Amino acid sequence: MKFSFKNDYSEGCHPNILQSLLQSNLEQQAGYGEDKYSLQAKELIKEKIKKADSDVYLVSGGTQANLIVISSVLKPYQCVISASVGHILNNETGAIEATGHKVLSIEKEDGKLTPSDIIPVLENHKNVPHQVMPKLVYISNSTELGTIYQAKELEELSDFCKKNNLYLFMDGARLGHGLTSEISDLSLEKVAELTDIFYLGGTKNGALIGEAIVINNSFLQEDFAFNIKQKGALLAKGRLLGIQFMELMKDDLYFDLAKHANQQAMKIKRAMQNKGVEFLSDTYTNQIFPILNNKVIAVLSEHFEFFVWKKVDEESSAIRLITSWNTGDDAVDRFIEIFEKEL
Amino acid sequence: MKFSFKNDYSEGCHPNILQSLLQSNLEQQAGYGEDKYSLQAKELIKEKIKKADSDVYLVSGGTQANLIVISSVLKPYQCVISASVGHILNNETGAIEATGHKVLSIEKEDGKLTPSDIIPVLENHKNVPHQVMPKLVYISNSTELGTIYQAKELEELSDFCKKNNLYLFMDGARLGHGLTSEISDLSLEKVAELTDIFYLGGTKNGALIGEAIVINNSFLQEDFAFNIKQKGALLAKGRLLGIQFMELMKDDLYFDLAKHANQQAMKIKRAMQNKGVEFLSDTYTNQIFPILNNKVIAVLSEHFEFFVWKKVDEESSAIRLITSWNTGDDAVDRFIEIFEKEL
Amino acid sequence: MKFSFKNDYSEGCHPNILQSLLQSNLEQQAGYGEDKYSLQAKELIKEKIKKADSDVYLVSGGTQANLIVISSVLKPYQCVISASVGHILNNETGAIEATGHKVLSIEKEDGKLTPSDIIPVLENHKNVPHQVMPKLVYISNSTELGTIYQAKELEELSDFCKKNNLYLFMDGARLGHGLTSEISDLSLEKVAELTDIFYLGGTKNGALIGEAIVINNSFLQEDFAFNIKQKGALLAKGRLLGIQFMELMKDDLYFDLAKHANQQAMKIKRAMQNKGVEFLSDTYTNQIFPILNNKVIAVLSEHFEFFVWKKVDEESSAIRLITSWNTGDDAVDRFIEIFEKEL
Amino acid sequence: MKFSFKNDYSEGCHPNILQSLLQSNLEQQAGYGEDKYSLQAKELIKEKIKKADSDVYLVSGGTQANLIVISSVLKPYQCVISASVGHILNNETGAIEATGHKVLSIEKEDGKLTPSDIIPVLENHKNVPHQVMPKLVYISNSTELGTIYQAKELEELSDFCKKNNLYLFMDGARLGHGLTSEISDLSLEKVAELTDIFYLGGTKNGALIGEAIVINNSFLQEDFAFNIKQKGALLAKGRLLGIQFMELMKDDLYFDLAKHANQQAMKIKRAMQNKGVEFLSDTYTNQIFPILNNKVIAVLSEHFEFFVWKKVDEESSAIRLITSWNTGDDAVDRFIEIFEKEL
Repeated sequence: MKFSFKNDYSEGCHPNILQSLLQSNLEQQAGYGEDKYSLQAKELIKEKIKKADSDVYLVSGGTQANLIVISSVLKPYQCVISASVGHILNNETGAIEATGHKVLSIEKEDGKLTPSDIIPVLENHKNVPHQVMPKLVYISNSTELGTIYQAKELEELSDFCKKNNLYLFMDGARLGHGLTSEISDLSLEKVAELTDIFYLGGTKNGALIGEAIVINNSFLQEDFAFNIKQKGALLAKGRLLGIQFMELMKDDLYFDLAKHANQQAMKIKRAMQNKGVEFLSDTYTNQIFPILNNKVIAVLSEHFEFFVWKKVDEESSAIRLITSWNTGDDAVDRFIEIFEKEL
Repeated sequence: MKFSFKNDYSEGCHPNILQSLLQSNLEQQAGYGEDKYSLQAKELIKEKIKKADSDVYLVSGGTQANLIVISSVLKPYQCVISASVGHILNNETGAIEATGHKVLSIEKEDGKLTPSDIIPVLENHKNVPHQVMPKLVYISNSTELGTIYQAKELEELSDFCKKNNLYLFMDGARLGHGLTSEISDLSLEKVAELTDIFYLGGTKNGALIGEAIVINNSFLQEDFAFNIKQKGALLAKGRLLGIQFMELMKDDLYFDLAKHANQQAMKIKRAMQNKGVEFLSDTYTNQIFPILNNKVIAVLSEHFEFFVWKKVDEESSAIRLITSWNTGDDAVDRFIEIFEKEL
Repeated sequence: MKFSFKNDYSEGCHPNILQSLLQSNLEQQAGYGEDKYSLQAKELIKEKIKKADSDVYLVSGGTQANLIVISSVLKPYQCVISASVGHILNNETGAIEATGHKVLSIEKEDGKLTPSDIIPVLENHKNVPHQVMPKLVYISNSTELGTIYQAKELEELSDFCKKNNLYLFMDGARLGHGLTSEISDLSLEKVAELTDIFYLGGTKNGALIGEAIVINNSFLQEDFAFNIKQKGALLAKGRLLGIQFMELMKDDLYFDLAKHANQQAMKIKRAMQNKGVEFLSDTYTNQIFPILNNKVIAVLSEHFEFFVWKKVDEESSAIRLITSWNTGDDAVDRFIEIFEKEL
Repeated sequence: MKFSFKNDYSEGCHPNILQSLLQSNLEQQAGYGEDKYSLQAKELIKEKIKKADSDVYLVSGGTQANLIVISSVLKPYQCVISASVGHILNNETGAIEATGHKVLSIEKEDGKLTPSDIIPVLENHKNVPHQVMPKLVYISNSTELGTIYQAKELEELSDFCKKNNLYLFMDGARLGHGLTSEISDLSLEKVAELTDIFYLGGTKNGALIGEAIVINNSFLQEDFAFNIKQKGALLAKGRLLGIQFMELMKDDLYFDLAKHANQQAMKIKRAMQNKGVEFLSDTYTNQIFPILNNKVIAVLSEHFEFFVWKKVDEESSAIRLITSWNTGDDAVDRFIEIFEKEL
């Protein structure tokens, strides 16, 4: 079988998690997230963000986290602002709208939002009460295009949101990758300080399942558990989620796994740059978008799975390569080798 | 720690499942339920129900299964009929209403619906278009009270639904327990024949997570996958669900586990009956509701966890005992021993 | 054509309203409720309730008012408590559930709620977060059965709601009739003081269309206009609604019309009581429910339209008679005459 | 007071309607649209479109019509395609999303959709089941920018929709103006033949209130009345809507009124063209968008109300002028006179 660079959820989970599942398997634990593992995982997260008064909830996946957070936070007439590549806009089958809320789209090449992107949207939504009220800014870090927010960028956005009475919500399906990027100066602690809500993605970073929603804004904490249950996200055996995050948060496993994924992508990136390859965007996380000659792509396709992302011109296309916590040196080296031979 | 008879999801999962997770862990598999384990699990289920043209979808939990099925099947003005003890009425935080649909409640002591229960509801909803249109009958087997549907009862209900243009949907969170009850004459194949949709519950029968939705009515099959995704139920690592059901469906593990749980409950039931204890309802699955003197309950509480279900009179109450696939003889024997001593 | 006692919306509107529509017809006015008539109507209502800081919104009908108010006020996991005869439970095609909220039903013969009715509902909804959270008490005055709330009853209910952190919402589709009942000691001012939101019904009391929603609780006032627009209730020619309520609120037309309707019903009631007729419930508004021999009903049906409400025994049934602002003495007298002759 | 060219709903209604309301006022009629006037109005519409098997429903306004139609027609995972200027995208406070459905936006200068606009949207939504399924094409005629669909354009669009299994829905808030435009070759009959659903707008064409929804596709007709009631749009005194459309449909009043509005706008347009004025778009209905020097705009603003639509350059802006069924020659002549003097 061909090795796949299609995504970062092709394998199962980090062995520590399976080991912990095995060891705890026959213990009786309370249901619905009241088990000791979930409690411990939540404590570990609160320690890491140094915010004892944040609330943490564990759910199964990213779309679920997004729809629960957004529908809980907004009033019926309020809406979300997202970059046009936002996961909620393109890859969630209208999950947000299904809860009753519009998502306003802002075209951005790099998938990142700045205050100056948002200002015109606010200005175009002043015809009260004939238009939805923008209330929540949705960002992803790393973004759907592999780009990241630096500390200063997030600070400016956070400031802007506070001044304009907007909530700031960070989709962290790939937060580990964003924060451990070699160019990132943003810390998890800072993310917790600057956002109203964010989540730490487990599914794409070594867990079988699970995202940890962290609510920093105390106003948004009230009764949040009801929303989890109502949307069908409260697992009877919450231990399954608790154990994932307990293991990921122990020591720095979560960040080590993400850093590994990033490094493997960077290894391929550098090899390509050495050969003069250009990239659709300049990313430093586990997603890269090299522009290659279609013939090279064809040969690589014989050996590896990946997405052809976008036609660039008649002769070349950008492909998307994603590495994961489990992408080994063998796969990376072989990919580079074949690439170099074909170029 | 006290042994708990509070529910059937206190432990992890059957060891075969963990073993299979371990063995497959580092394989790369397709995401979103296209992995080979999910495909195999679905095939096994279709073989067991002998309906090659049914569709099977794996989701995480019961509330999720209920809300996805019901919201997918109904038009905005259509509603559900449920017995008053129905899980969707009492224990899902309004999940069904949150998707826009009313649930009509029918008071029934035993938690089971018959055509004669439903007829007056239909008759009281004929003021078109001022009332919701009843369209789906929701039943549980075994029910929330541990009672079960026999083949003839389900046939009559199914007939009635067809004649009245109603869908029949069986919540099978405890379907294993219902079908392996010592008094049950209903088979899984028959369930598939007589319902439009049902699901096989994994969470309460030895899985870590997972319910298998089976759509028998071809009209309801169209585009169902969109609903799974939109409600946040499509796991990126669908293999997690696939492996659970692959293992449970191999040989007859699913039914063996349920039968074991039932037998442990019956052992306690018989011991109590021998001592003249009466029960709130006469159940033959893994839930029993003995009526005991409050002093006896107090002593039992020192040694075991269970719910005090309902006050019966000043001196006695009904308690609820639930056994599981993993309830051992030691716990059962010790419970009986203490009970007999105290009586 | 037979005269109809079927409802109180069989005729058009009070002539003053048509006159005012005629006089103002060709004036240009601002749209969407910013016309001078709407502004004046709102001022008149605020004067009558002596609450300058209440907010008033005019919408088209009762179902619309109910669904807008309830969906605006509740968070996704919160629900409504209603008497079992509540209009929102039986006659609105699941309009409230369609906005995502469950309506809990309390069986009450007289259609009225008291604190002691609500206490057990609150007690049965403490399994956080597995159940909906009761948050709003919905009452009608006069009720769907023609009964009314007295000042003391409403005070007790209002007190109870405040103590239990519940909103109190009065459906006033027939508020005029409730307040002008010969036995009522409740005033409009008092209603505004004791409820968080209520509305004054126009459609059933001499308007062509229109209910005036009054929001007394300042916390619920914020941004309410968005909800009106989002639910399709903001008329471009808001003047149509403004003129109705301006005319109804001038002098005491609104109350005079309701009192007339009540008196006509009472005239029939007394005539029947004089002949020993019993009533399903003892009402003092424009709805009466006499129990008559089926033969008498048959004869009356030859001359008048009305609903046969409920079979009482093999020989007799309760009928429902509704009088309106426009029910003339001739119809009432003729009805009494035929009734007395047949008895 | 200044004469307003701000919109086409500043005045009340055509005198015939008021006359008819007066004459019928004290008749008793059945409620909820079963009155004889509503029945007659529906018959007249079906005669005019020569489709006896279409279904007609009368509702209050455009946002209401749009949200009822769209939410009734779509399954939860299906979405709407609209031109970016579509009323549902910009001016309805997220009413469509509030019913659970996404609206995909296509940028178009002229506000009109063609098959070639839609093809890329369909191509970009093939990632089943991760994306919403486009299912309904929403168009307005005349559009929000005053432009219109010609017969051939609508035929091509209708053909395309049929081939691609899409519904075609025409928002006819200004359908009269679209069809009576001096350049239009489209007939009402043709509209009914080529669309699955459309509506005839009354509010912006001489009615006090009211849009007539016409369902041509028999598959979409089933149980539609439930949706009307559930969304709070079923008026108890349906006669109010019936009388409006009965009068508008008698003879050709509806079209005469629209034609008058168009002609008044064209009179101003020609006067401006004679003076070399350019227009933002070349419209032939009751909305025109002349580009004027800001000084001229300032002077005109002293005498008339209108919207300044869009800044064009430092010295000039486009204004929007809307004429109505009741815009008299005096207002038009005076506008032209002042304009000519100032230019």
